[in-house]
Amino acid sequence: MAKEIKELTPRDENYSQWYNDLVIKADLAENSAVRGCMVIKPYGYAIWEKIQRQLDDMFKETGHVNAYFPLFIPKSFLSKEADHVEGFAKECAVVTHYRLKNDPNGKGVVVDPEARLEEELIVRPTSETIIWNTYKGWIQSYRDLPILVNQWANVVRWEMRTRLFLRTAEFLWQEGHTAHATQEEALEETVKMLNVYAEFAEKYMALPVIKGVKTFSERFAGALETYCIEALMQDGKALQAGTSHFLGQNFAKAFDVQFIDKEGKREYVWSTSWGVSTRLMGALIMSHSDDNGLVLPPRLAPYQVVIVPIYKTDEQLAQIDTCVAGIVSALKALNISVKYDNAQNKKPGWKFAEYELKGVPVRLAIGARDLENGTVEVARRDTLTKETRTSENIAVYVKQLLEDIQANIYQKACDYRTSKIITVDTYEEFKEKIEEGGFILAHWDGTIETEALVKEETKATIRCIPLDGDQTPGKCMVTGKPSAQRVIFARSY
Amino acid sequence: MAKEIKELTPRDENYSQWYNDLVIKADLAENSAVRGCMVIKPYGYAIWEKIQRQLDDMFKETGHVNAYFPLFIPKSFLSKEADHVEGFAKECAVVTHYRLKNDPNGKGVVVDPEARLEEELIVRPTSETIIWNTYKGWIQSYRDLPILVNQWANVVRWEMRTRLFLRTAEFLWQEGHTAHATQEEALEETVKMLNVYAEFAEKYMALPVIKGVKTFSERFAGALETYCIEALMQDGKALQAGTSHFLGQNFAKAFDVQFIDKEGKREYVWSTSWGVSTRLMGALIMSHSDDNGLVLPPRLAPYQVVIVPIYKTDEQLAQIDTCVAGIVSALKALNISVKYDNAQNKKPGWKFAEYELKGVPVRLAIGARDLENGTVEVARRDTLTKETRTSENIAVYVKQLLEDIQANIYQKACDYRTSKIITVDTYEEFKEKIEEGGFILAHWDGTIETEALVKEETKATIRCIPLDGDQTPGKCMVTGKPSAQRVIFARSY
Repeated sequence: MAKEIKELTPRDENYSQWYNDLVIKADLAENSAVRGCMVIKPYGYAIWEKIQRQLDDMFKETGHVNAYFPLFIPKSFLSKEADHVEGFAKECAVVTHYRLKNDPNGKGVVVDPEARLEEELIVRPTSETIIWNTYKGWIQSYRDLPILVNQWANVVRWEMRTRLFLRTAEFLWQEGHTAHATQEEALEETVKMLNVYAEFAEKYMALPVIKGVKTFSERFAGALETYCIEALMQDGKALQAGTSHFLGQNFAKAFDVQFIDKEGKREYVWSTSWGVSTRLMGALIMSHSDDNGLVLPPRLAPYQVVIVPIYKTDEQLAQIDTCVAGIVSALKALNISVKYDNAQNKKPGWKFAEYELKGVPVRLAIGARDLENGTVEVARRDTLTKETRTSENIAVYVKQLLEDIQANIYQKACDYRTSKIITVDTYEEFKEKIEEGGFILAHWDGTIETEALVKEETKATIRCIPLDGDQTPGKCMVTGKPSAQRVIFARSY
Repeated sequence: MAKEIKELTPRDENYSQWYNDLVIKADLAENSAVRGCMVIKPYGYAIWEKIQRQLDDMFKETGHVNAYFPLFIPKSFLSKEADHVEGFAKECAVVTHYRLKNDPNGKGVVVDPEARLEEELIVRPTSETIIWNTYKGWIQSYRDLPILVNQWANVVRWEMRTRLFLRTAEFLWQEGHTAHATQEEALEETVKMLNVYAEFAEKYMALPVIKGVKTFSERFAGALETYCIEALMQDGKALQAGTSHFLGQNFAKAFDVQFIDKEGKREYVWSTSWGVSTRLMGALIMSHSDDNGLVLPPRLAPYQVVIVPIYKTDEQLAQIDTCVAGIVSALKALNISVKYDNAQNKKPGWKFAEYELKGVPVRLAIGARDLENGTVEVARRDTLTKETRTSENIAVYVKQLLEDIQANIYQKACDYRTSKIITVDTYEEFKEKIEEGGFILAHWDGTIETEALVKEETKATIRCIPLDGDQTPGKCMVTGKPSAQRVIFARSY
């Protein structure tokens, strides 16, 4: 046990290193031979699958369907929406050729200069352009609306500094792209999906989030309004966990997508887009885990319970196997995912450390004495506490325990965040407090200049203009000019 | 109704056009602005999701886990396995640059010549190389084996002639990549996954397949043995529906992946890879559908039942709505997916044609007279027959009907295939029969030359050396030389 723990850098020593250690040692992901691209390992991918499945169900419940659009985007498409090109058409992977040939001067293969594409193709950094070019063929009349489509896909943004899950050149995500007959309906959709994200974060990831609107400088390239959910990590830095964009008629105009409305008038279509990515994995890891390893909310844990037998003889193991078989089927009957690890080549201590590192919410251990007494040792990953109790009705007990753990992790994250939300009124105080991390509520005059100044001097950005909470006007902490309401500043990932 | 039917080219007039019409008109997929890349539309994608979910369950039941590897492969990786480079490193998308910039001479963006990659990246045509480069870090000892990993991903092969689902530049697939300590275990895995594919094809797609081994010329580039399942389409052409490759130690040697075995000896790892793709959609469409549209096996239909109300007044509709609500919940309670289409802007006739075109297995229609009589009209898509029956216990009846339809579609495909399997003994007869399509069982001398000659002269290839059935030796129909057993020839997709 000690061995594994020693290998994880403690959070207060070096938070960033702790995160990197954890991602590697818990077998979540690793860097690949391709700069900036990660390999998502089976254990990490199993968590991502849980995230995907749950979000996908929620998208479908809200009337969305999935589809798939091309990986490649013709270069000229990116320039069609003026703001979009500024935001996305820069750091991206460009396909220029479609053939290799044997190297005439030696071994291996070289790019065939004769197989140059007439127009370069960009590996999608996001799919608004190719999708709106497609929607043009799908939309003629108001009867074709709304279109409520989502896509699960990989995207590529050529980031210079990458970190596993948090910022990678290639990442996995979902992108919703909807088309509507009216501005009102599109705005409603934008907010609806923001709420889906917030509900997912809070109920499944056990992650409290603040819902808000981005400032002009932080807006998605091509959007009229970007809504977001912002979470606070244990080092006091903010992490944008999901965004939902109201795109107005920008992409409809760029791709000339018009429809005949009920009155027979031609109108441009209104649209939204919204997405979350494998970055959520980073948020999940960072918000709950500790110096012993991952702490997973039961609702997203690949297995919620692990059972470890403690034995000296093969006979004892056989007896424990029999006893555990009953527990396993009782747990499964309650829809609890369970792994029984009776591998003989690993010691119980090694297994305990391993599953602690991997964040399995509940560990049951059963030894010879437990068999005699009809007991089982129950350990919680979130509190690291243990108790010995009767094995009677253990499945029902564990089911409740998993719910308690889910609630406890969420409450802990809420309490932490509450302790790190600070209200300041002067820029002096702001500069002092920002060093301690957390969300800082302060007045801002609404100008790009002030926002840029604060960012330059303190590395803090406006995470969002919160939708809920106190909206009393005041005076900008920097310029003293009028402010409509406090906004949230933080340093961020 | 007539309108839609007229728009589909009949199969016997032009089978190929019928297929293209059907894919477009049933809203399955369409061509995109990017040459060779398709858009999979929501209805088509919903079928693909069913395929995915079922296969994924079967992979997990057989001990596999999912993971994700990079989209890009360094060019040099492709040359590491000699056969592999010949097969794959040719027609592929090559990323040469990682940045665009504003065009100094005008509008839009151009590739930034200063952002040239040191080594070009290839968009994965298949992932053996990047995965085996990764496995090198995962495998030290026999305790790390087996690795049973699958990946759901998009891949790109720069095909010159493309057809929706059947051959596209980008397609979706799954690729399993397993690593084993012994040759025996790897061979066992290869066959196990072939059987999973065959079971899926037969039980879910209702598609009879022949299991076999590919000849040397048709083998996967880098494999020692390629197993396949071959299906027969309604035009008498064969379609390879899935492959499972025994890779020996080829990729382990190419990427130097060794392990310490139980005796402490260093050994190269044995491997397999196996995959099916969105091509299965093509097989599904072509094997069961008719001149009226899609025919979907109930197990893969996005909705298995559609209910259409027939009414004249709003009052009638309200009554039917109430009656249908009960039927819908009874169907859902039996895990049957159902759509109630009471949209007022479409006529029943239009709806009938639409759902026929989309292959919904069972259609229920309820009119005012049905309400009076306590009846419902039940229509089967596979046989195009209708009956009126009591609405009592209709859900139970429909459940059984769906099973009957699944079985009937399969039986029909089996009967068709049986009628198209022909045994020939002379090359003259072969040349005559091949014109009629179907699988032709003939003796072959096992040489590449004979195989190539037959292909050149008749456009028929050896689909596989079948694993089951008659394995009596004989004489090659072309050369008269000895043949170990009959093989299957066909023209193919």
